[in-house]
Amino acid sequence: MLRKSLPSWTHPKILCRQMSVVARSLKYTQHGEPQDVLHLVEDQLAEPKNQQVLVKILAAPINPADINTIQGKYPVKPKFPAVAGNEFVGEVICVGDKVKKLQPGAHVVPLATGLGTWTTHAVYNEDQLMAISNKVGLAEAATITVNPCTAYRMLKDFVQLSPGDTVIQNGANSAVGQAVHQLCKAWGINSVGIVRNRPEIAELKKMLECLGANAVLTEEEMRTSDIFKSGKLQRPKLAFNCVGGKSATEVSRHLNDRGVMVTYGGMSREPVTVATGPLIFKDIAFRGFWMTRWSKENYSAPERTQMFKELCQLMEQGKFVAPTHEMVPLEKFKEAAAAALSFKGFTGKKFILEMSC
Amino acid sequence: MLRKSLPSWTHPKILCRQMSVVARSLKYTQHGEPQDVLHLVEDQLAEPKNQQVLVKILAAPINPADINTIQGKYPVKPKFPAVAGNEFVGEVICVGDKVKKLQPGAHVVPLATGLGTWTTHAVYNEDQLMAISNKVGLAEAATITVNPCTAYRMLKDFVQLSPGDTVIQNGANSAVGQAVHQLCKAWGINSVGIVRNRPEIAELKKMLECLGANAVLTEEEMRTSDIFKSGKLQRPKLAFNCVGGKSATEVSRHLNDRGVMVTYGGMSREPVTVATGPLIFKDIAFRGFWMTRWSKENYSAPERTQMFKELCQLMEQGKFVAPTHEMVPLEKFKEAAAAALSFKGFTGKKFILEMSC
Repeated sequence: MLRKSLPSWTHPKILCRQMSVVARSLKYTQHGEPQDVLHLVEDQLAEPKNQQVLVKILAAPINPADINTIQGKYPVKPKFPAVAGNEFVGEVICVGDKVKKLQPGAHVVPLATGLGTWTTHAVYNEDQLMAISNKVGLAEAATITVNPCTAYRMLKDFVQLSPGDTVIQNGANSAVGQAVHQLCKAWGINSVGIVRNRPEIAELKKMLECLGANAVLTEEEMRTSDIFKSGKLQRPKLAFNCVGGKSATEVSRHLNDRGVMVTYGGMSREPVTVATGPLIFKDIAFRGFWMTRWSKENYSAPERTQMFKELCQLMEQGKFVAPTHEMVPLEKFKEAAAAALSFKGFTGKKFILEMSC
Repeated sequence: MLRKSLPSWTHPKILCRQMSVVARSLKYTQHGEPQDVLHLVEDQLAEPKNQQVLVKILAAPINPADINTIQGKYPVKPKFPAVAGNEFVGEVICVGDKVKKLQPGAHVVPLATGLGTWTTHAVYNEDQLMAISNKVGLAEAATITVNPCTAYRMLKDFVQLSPGDTVIQNGANSAVGQAVHQLCKAWGINSVGIVRNRPEIAELKKMLECLGANAVLTEEEMRTSDIFKSGKLQRPKLAFNCVGGKSATEVSRHLNDRGVMVTYGGMSREPVTVATGPLIFKDIAFRGFWMTRWSKENYSAPERTQMFKELCQLMEQGKFVAPTHEMVPLEKFKEAAAAALSFKGFTGKKFILEMSC
């Protein structure tokens, strides 16, 4: 207890003299399919100095944006040779002598993108990292900065929601979709999820309802549903779209007057089609959201700190769990990347690389 | 000069005793094509009382929304029997004894919609009318409340524009399009107009450039233009769409990062198609605008008074002229309505009914 009350600069520090290690990293030197261009490479890391921190990566998820970046289909282009991956949870091993806020043993997650996280160890600057409570589960911590933050911001930044309001989304079983249902439940907001029909639809519905969805409907069921007409739920003020095409049109059709549809993905590769009538007469707005941009523009904003605080609290309380996922050893990256590439992968489960060295 | 300085309640009033008249109005009792369902009907008007005002209508335009209302295709449904038309300029003939702000001889335009304006005379409540300087031309006054206000609000309410910024629009020769070019010129904003190709394209371009357009391009020319790439003009912050379909897609493609496209019409009857990439990565927003709604929600707002003041000043100074139009006697309404119905009518010239009784 005594140590806890001491100011951080009095903590004993493990400095980084002769603490450099060999990192095994998934690197690529040209764009292409991950299983073709990624190679497991060993590098001797330089000794961390000044504000640098040596981190042992514990887990790093494979996000759709990581795959698209490797393929060269993402607006963010790495400098080659590059270590793939953007998200992780790691443990601080030792710190440079000018590091002020992080101690060895602390769990950290990235504040910046493009750090190259599919690796066993990495040296980052202190200000690229955020300490996260060790009480937050590894899978939750490893996936906190992209999907839960996307859900959080989309729920906060487009319309003013109050308890009892409704949110509707397609791709409701995506990682963001699962986060939306959980945040809605925590905040007293009704959420309706649309998913594609599939053999195991009953289990999927049950899983999403357990996360907090008030109703989960297939695209076909949604077309004839009277869930809003009947007054069972209020018409949605807010819709999230990660599919596009007919699915997006169907979702936007249910929006209330002045409703907003936010697009954050386009899994079907079809554009969003917007009828003129709802735009003009119902004042429906069509917006987009990109977490990477928001994080850059709000790097040190109090809204960002508040968001992480709130998400961590929910995670510690067990009210927010990681999306359906499978932990995969780093060595199995080819299988995991190939599976993550498939349409099923994007909407099925998230693969999280586990570094075991 | 002395009379001008007297407060308004000391003005001699022409009260309305025995001043009722016979009005000849274009009425309809069911939805359908204007030339089929409109009939010229004579009605003895009741004597105006209290806050009522007897107005002699001087000119009333045929707007697309008037036609759609008669057809039953507009979200505003009249009570039958209804007098058609929503816009006009009229002259106050006499006033009820509780009218405070209007005097006989004053020119007035409607503050409300659905007043039924395709008529020679009408009795309105004082608060449904706004006095307008007699120095404003009849065609300008008759068409002030819909198209110039639409252009004004779309330029003011969606993004913050500064001199040197660019606005792009399709249907640039529509009545709203012409208003946009003139307001942009008055405010130092660059405006680019897109029009469909046609035999008399050179004259059309010249006309729009005279109104203030910095460049007028056909849809085909726009596709290969380097007007923005070359840096000749900044990429637009704001786009207006009244066409839909491919034209809307082409226009939105040129928007700058964080640009907004506002849809206020859908002449092609094709929806707006929005690629996922620009929504997410460029943060382009797709909105809609409906003047009728804005006017209702801002009936007495200072923004509305300010808007009319500014528009009237520009009109008095000759810096804002009515859209290309043709004055048509009330008796010729069938020909005018049929012409206004055609695609050419909507994008060609506006017909303004002239009441000559």
